[in-house]
Amino acid sequence: MKRENGAPIGVFDSGVGGLTVAREIMRQIPNEKIIYFGDTARVPYGSKSKETVTRFSRQIVRFLQSFQVKTIVVACNTASAYALDELEKETDIPIIGVVKPGAKTAVQVTRNGKIGVIATEATIGSRIYSKYIQELNENVTIYGKACPLFVPLVEEGLWQDPVTDEIAKRYLTELIDIDIDTLILGCTHYPLIRSTLGRIMGEKVTLVNPAYETARELRELLDKKGILNEEPPELGDNQYQFYVSDGAEKFKQFANSIIKYGILSTKTVNIEQY
Amino acid sequence: MKRENGAPIGVFDSGVGGLTVAREIMRQIPNEKIIYFGDTARVPYGSKSKETVTRFSRQIVRFLQSFQVKTIVVACNTASAYALDELEKETDIPIIGVVKPGAKTAVQVTRNGKIGVIATEATIGSRIYSKYIQELNENVTIYGKACPLFVPLVEEGLWQDPVTDEIAKRYLTELIDIDIDTLILGCTHYPLIRSTLGRIMGEKVTLVNPAYETARELRELLDKKGILNEEPPELGDNQYQFYVSDGAEKFKQFANSIIKYGILSTKTVNIEQY
Repeated sequence: MKRENGAPIGVFDSGVGGLTVAREIMRQIPNEKIIYFGDTARVPYGSKSKETVTRFSRQIVRFLQSFQVKTIVVACNTASAYALDELEKETDIPIIGVVKPGAKTAVQVTRNGKIGVIATEATIGSRIYSKYIQELNENVTIYGKACPLFVPLVEEGLWQDPVTDEIAKRYLTELIDIDIDTLILGCTHYPLIRSTLGRIMGEKVTLVNPAYETARELRELLDKKGILNEEPPELGDNQYQFYVSDGAEKFKQFANSIIKYGILSTKTVNIEQY
Repeated sequence: MKRENGAPIGVFDSGVGGLTVAREIMRQIPNEKIIYFGDTARVPYGSKSKETVTRFSRQIVRFLQSFQVKTIVVACNTASAYALDELEKETDIPIIGVVKPGAKTAVQVTRNGKIGVIATEATIGSRIYSKYIQELNENVTIYGKACPLFVPLVEEGLWQDPVTDEIAKRYLTELIDIDIDTLILGCTHYPLIRSTLGRIMGEKVTLVNPAYETARELRELLDKKGILNEEPPELGDNQYQFYVSDGAEKFKQFANSIIKYGILSTKTVNIEQY
């Protein structure tokens, strides 16, 4: 086995949302080691500018590279939308985002050619999902809707709550009226309120969670490059390591409600130094 | 007139909330120049740790000092709660926060000795209002309640909205049951939903907005030190200058809905460099 195969995968997000992607990677390629970074000191990204999100993302990539990661997953739609192109140019290891995999799945799934995307203001404003989807199939129409209150509602734990229902109805009404048949959950927080979203959209609408397809593409990429980790990590090896820029203890509690593997090690780093 | 009298006052907040304090300073001491900084790249502060908020605040103080400000107002309850003591030790100009003035007013106002404080998780967790109030009058009891969803609701413009009503009722019920007669709006965003809060609390409860008292204390401080600006700035002089760490245009729009003076100049700076 080449040394690189045993190297970890870097995964980052503005905070806890990317854990829904990390969880999917753990499920689909359980032999891999993961270094997760959540930028909890500067969360959220979704209301911030391209320049700022790109600067933050660059610092995180430098941090992850200090672990000799073999690849990096940008497990944040906003950072994928704003920073992925720049990061790919500047970095010599493969980097994948969550937007392209989500777009691909949606195009495969839609029957009537009307796809809705819900995401942060930044992701919707970037029109990145439209760009990728149009490249795949120009006959598909994309309807984007920014849902800025979903992230704070999820972070407050109101996953099943009349207030979340009310806000979701406001955001989704126009997508229902347009008669979309596919809805991309274009922010890594949104899978946590999937049942609310599914109930409001109705059973004719397929919800696409880019996390699943992202983990599948990651697996393919590692396989193609011959750097899949074929063997499970040794016992006592710290397979999943978590780093945050603030509030390690709070992160750990939230993370343990999402990931069933148990978040053992969470450390705080000053990301501005990278 | 000494040169220092004409020097500007530095005012900072995690974002736009501190504008409610800046507005009050403009009203009460209209001859003063203001340099306002909103940390929009790293907003919000209210869910972050003492260490992180202090580090961010230090950078902002260094930035403001580059303008030779004669005093600094920490127009953010979280930063006042977590960082003011440190900042005072490290800085050779006077620095005032919003917590002490708010505490003082509440003690003067209460008749039944039961004061409620609503604020971010950080401010409530710090127990700073309790500390100051107990120092002023140990017979007063303080009831703190963190209201983490108010900031995103205000930032989304839902100042008058059934959802804000519903969330406010949940947060405030226990304070109503305890029969407080005074409620401190312990976050600079909250005055923007004052009418909702007042309606729910009922007319027997006095709402205390620390911004008013902070501006009054600032005026006293400048007067005592002999550095009040006695003359209005000259025409063409840029009396109010606004700086943010991200999204100058978006900030300007929001700011113009709060401050009637017109936000002419808003510039973006990379605060991490300070």
